[in-house]
Amino acid sequence: MSTTTPLSPTARSTVRRGAKRARTDRTELYAVLDAGLVGHLGVVLGGAPVVLPTGYGRHGDTLYLHGSTGASTLRAAAAGAPVCFTVTRVDGVVYARSAMHHSMNYRCAVVHGAARLVTDPAERALGFEVLTEHLAPGSWTATRQPDRKELAATALLALDLTEASVKVRTGPPNDDERDLDAPVWAGVLPVHTVVGTPVPDRLLPEGTPVPDRVLSRRV
Amino acid sequence: MSTTTPLSPTARSTVRRGAKRARTDRTELYAVLDAGLVGHLGVVLGGAPVVLPTGYGRHGDTLYLHGSTGASTLRAAAAGAPVCFTVTRVDGVVYARSAMHHSMNYRCAVVHGAARLVTDPAERALGFEVLTEHLAPGSWTATRQPDRKELAATALLALDLTEASVKVRTGPPNDDERDLDAPVWAGVLPVHTVVGTPVPDRLLPEGTPVPDRVLSRRV
Repeated sequence: MSTTTPLSPTARSTVRRGAKRARTDRTELYAVLDAGLVGHLGVVLGGAPVVLPTGYGRHGDTLYLHGSTGASTLRAAAAGAPVCFTVTRVDGVVYARSAMHHSMNYRCAVVHGAARLVTDPAERALGFEVLTEHLAPGSWTATRQPDRKELAATALLALDLTEASVKVRTGPPNDDERDLDAPVWAGVLPVHTVVGTPVPDRLLPEGTPVPDRVLSRRV
Repeated sequence: MSTTTPLSPTARSTVRRGAKRARTDRTELYAVLDAGLVGHLGVVLGGAPVVLPTGYGRHGDTLYLHGSTGASTLRAAAAGAPVCFTVTRVDGVVYARSAMHHSMNYRCAVVHGAARLVTDPAERALGFEVLTEHLAPGSWTATRQPDRKELAATALLALDLTEASVKVRTGPPNDDERDLDAPVWAGVLPVHTVVGTPVPDRLLPEGTPVPDRVLSRRV
């Protein structure tokens, strides 16, 4: 898909509330998805929504999602039920001069569609690589790759990025004119997601070095 | 509700996949909800799920959610449609000796139910206070409180914590016995959410001090 392909070709993927925060550039969709660690997958089960955190990875205009073959949400999605997959990063707490203008800075991508169960062995290998590399870059080749039994126990779903929206809020509070003279601090408290010091598994042989792929991981 | 009230009284809120990660103590539900900044609200619109990031706050066994009165998801939820509200914190990237055992450490709370539109003025005042204080502790009393017009433009939903589940993953990778001798680093890379240096609104009078409520905010 070209990066000029419209991002929101449908009514439900067109941002209406807070439309000034909508982004329509496909590269912004990629950026938000690539910056997330976990997404929230929504499916309808028995007429009610179920929303669960789900690992994912992006390859071009396809998202790969995985989960146990036993999970009812994954089974419903694999059967072609409509899904919604949402990735949100919080970037800051926005302090305003009035309570109701308090807000959050964030980046959010919402993808609508029907997922498909990936059965082709080559695409399954690609999908699991993409998922592993999204979570832990460099780990696919540095660790033991899946065997037949592990692959059979794991469902792989593909969700195409054909119907999506992106919403981003940045910058200061949008206070009312009437509040600007109030002696109240206003501004943004940035929120960052960072990594700490790697904690080695206690079963590792003493002195096993932490590899670059872990030391250089940023989230 | 007593903290001994069962957390998962229904089939759909009983964790089946990865049941060893399920927590059934109500105080753990509170802890996960209180630690989150944003939740993901799922509703069904036209037969398809829609999942959007949503601000919230907790008061006892009630979650308050808000949004513009014009948002179709909020309207559906306010009309009594079933909703699912999920809060997830990622705590670490779990590096394993095999690709398929890579995982994430996280805390996740999933709440099912039907929300109700809050119309009682006293409960509305309480709900907006709870929402503001969840996002920005201390801001409710330190900033201008909502006027009648602001209140009218904002829907407030209440969702009771009667049907919920909590899942937590902590600790090292669960590698296969066969992989333990592999010369591959394994362990956890902790993921933290932290705040940066407050950025004052450029419209603030020079020298306006940053209040303690901002300086002491942790996320």
